[in-house]
Amino acid sequence: MDEFELIRRYFAPLSGPAEGVMLGIGDDCALLAPPPGYELAITSDTLISGRHFPEETAPFDIGWKALAVNLSDLAAMGAKARWFTLALALPEANESWLAGFSGGLKKLADESGVHLVGGDTTRGPLTITITALGIVPAGGALRRSGAQAGDRICVSGTLGDAALALDRWRAGGDPGADDAPSLRARLDRPTPRLALGEALRGIAHAAIDLSDGLAADLAHVLEASGVGAQVYAARLPASTAFDRLAPAADRARLQLAGGDDYELCLCIAPSQLSEARRRAAALGCALTDIGEIEAGSGLGVVDTHGAPLALSELGYRHFP
Amino acid sequence: MDEFELIRRYFAPLSGPAEGVMLGIGDDCALLAPPPGYELAITSDTLISGRHFPEETAPFDIGWKALAVNLSDLAAMGAKARWFTLALALPEANESWLAGFSGGLKKLADESGVHLVGGDTTRGPLTITITALGIVPAGGALRRSGAQAGDRICVSGTLGDAALALDRWRAGGDPGADDAPSLRARLDRPTPRLALGEALRGIAHAAIDLSDGLAADLAHVLEASGVGAQVYAARLPASTAFDRLAPAADRARLQLAGGDDYELCLCIAPSQLSEARRRAAALGCALTDIGEIEAGSGLGVVDTHGAPLALSELGYRHFP
Repeated sequence: MDEFELIRRYFAPLSGPAEGVMLGIGDDCALLAPPPGYELAITSDTLISGRHFPEETAPFDIGWKALAVNLSDLAAMGAKARWFTLALALPEANESWLAGFSGGLKKLADESGVHLVGGDTTRGPLTITITALGIVPAGGALRRSGAQAGDRICVSGTLGDAALALDRWRAGGDPGADDAPSLRARLDRPTPRLALGEALRGIAHAAIDLSDGLAADLAHVLEASGVGAQVYAARLPASTAFDRLAPAADRARLQLAGGDDYELCLCIAPSQLSEARRRAAALGCALTDIGEIEAGSGLGVVDTHGAPLALSELGYRHFP
Repeated sequence: MDEFELIRRYFAPLSGPAEGVMLGIGDDCALLAPPPGYELAITSDTLISGRHFPEETAPFDIGWKALAVNLSDLAAMGAKARWFTLALALPEANESWLAGFSGGLKKLADESGVHLVGGDTTRGPLTITITALGIVPAGGALRRSGAQAGDRICVSGTLGDAALALDRWRAGGDPGADDAPSLRARLDRPTPRLALGEALRGIAHAAIDLSDGLAADLAHVLEASGVGAQVYAARLPASTAFDRLAPAADRARLQLAGGDDYELCLCIAPSQLSEARRRAAALGCALTDIGEIEAGSGLGVVDTHGAPLALSELGYRHFP
């Protein structure tokens, strides 16, 4: 199977005619026609085996996650996801791996309404780079830089599930035990909050998606906006599986620095909070008020006993 | 040096305010505003150390080449290059490597008028994926599918230099000998033919850039256009360095299947040939008529003695 046969068999089914695609895969470039009055949101994220997912991860889940982490960035801008390119390096043309991988990619692509428009396949250590493109009404994107003192800080869904799943996996825990499958699903198949991002455009002052952990990601918002924040550990939303399985001593670390949540963190004026919640609820999505934006700088976290929590040991900044 | 410091130091200088960039690096996505009436051309290409360039390649040249191969795809569509994202996996944050790599990237970006708008850096085996974006007047792009029987087949510049440089490098040849430096420059710092692609929009019926070798790349045009072609080995343009250093027995292989030329191959109606040559000459670029498009299918090559040349041993199709 050569490169072209591989593309025809596994990736052409993700392409095909789609709105705004004047020319899809198979030429030197794809040609896209963004609608007038919109800006184009673009993001590139790489997943490397053993670094961004455990090497034993199912190919279906690798395909899903590679796209999900990129769509999550579009969600954080309030963009409508439209197109993506795939650059795939893989050690060998293993057909069962490719069938699983492209299947996971296609499942999420279909659910999200995005279309493959180009890319590159080459032999090398397993590395997946996706560039995702979305559209957003001109001037309407959610940025990191718009947070204002007095805003409520809200997060979608629950935090810490994926990090707990990873801890348990590394420790050799039985993945079938208790509620572990639901945790693993959060690690392997994160759900990009595309509909929520779009719904809160024009409402939220600022947004970011949670990939490196709440503390690190919220810090980017604070820096970009020139503000500080106070967050309350007791308010951080948790799943029932997390509540049952997370060791008490690890809860704060998992929820604040665990990463891989792919939830949205949004800064919203108090006067808009009920409307934001209404819109989130209409999408079946919880939106939890976890703290407030303040004048000044830096992130303070109040632990469950009302005392300041030292963040110094929580941060996660992978080199580069 | 963490990921953010690395980006600030080495890659932020390639970003900065630019036409059509509403938001550059530093948020979840970049925001771009393509001008009305244009389509967006997009391409992603990956370079892997030891596969797409020799491991000993200078970091400056790796940076240059990673961008060049993508811009070459934009050139083949007749697009004006505008923006790019960079996904970089590297084994360690080696500052001298990063300074060289980002320097080469910046040099070509500045010369080509393209701006870095986003990306990702992570630790892993050296892998560079660039996604490049350009703009082209709606409906005006050069495609692979437009070749017509009777068209002349033209190539820009000269063919085989990069492949010869690679052969000599692998054989341990003295890179300083004779004209070898000019060959090495073709391998390490290919020149994307952006101005030529734009100049021949509205003139050429079809175009492709030569990355895998003339025979393989022209075959894509023939397949997409539903036509055949005859090419004359004796007409293939060669540099003086190539003429002096290429072993006679290797010439056809190097020029037809060598790859890494990054010249354009264009199909042009005979009535437009002189205008095409005039425009190419105005850009200081040779345009050589190497054969003709015919009804039917398949590529025939006539060797320098006027006999058919067997292509079976020439093709190069890297798995995937």
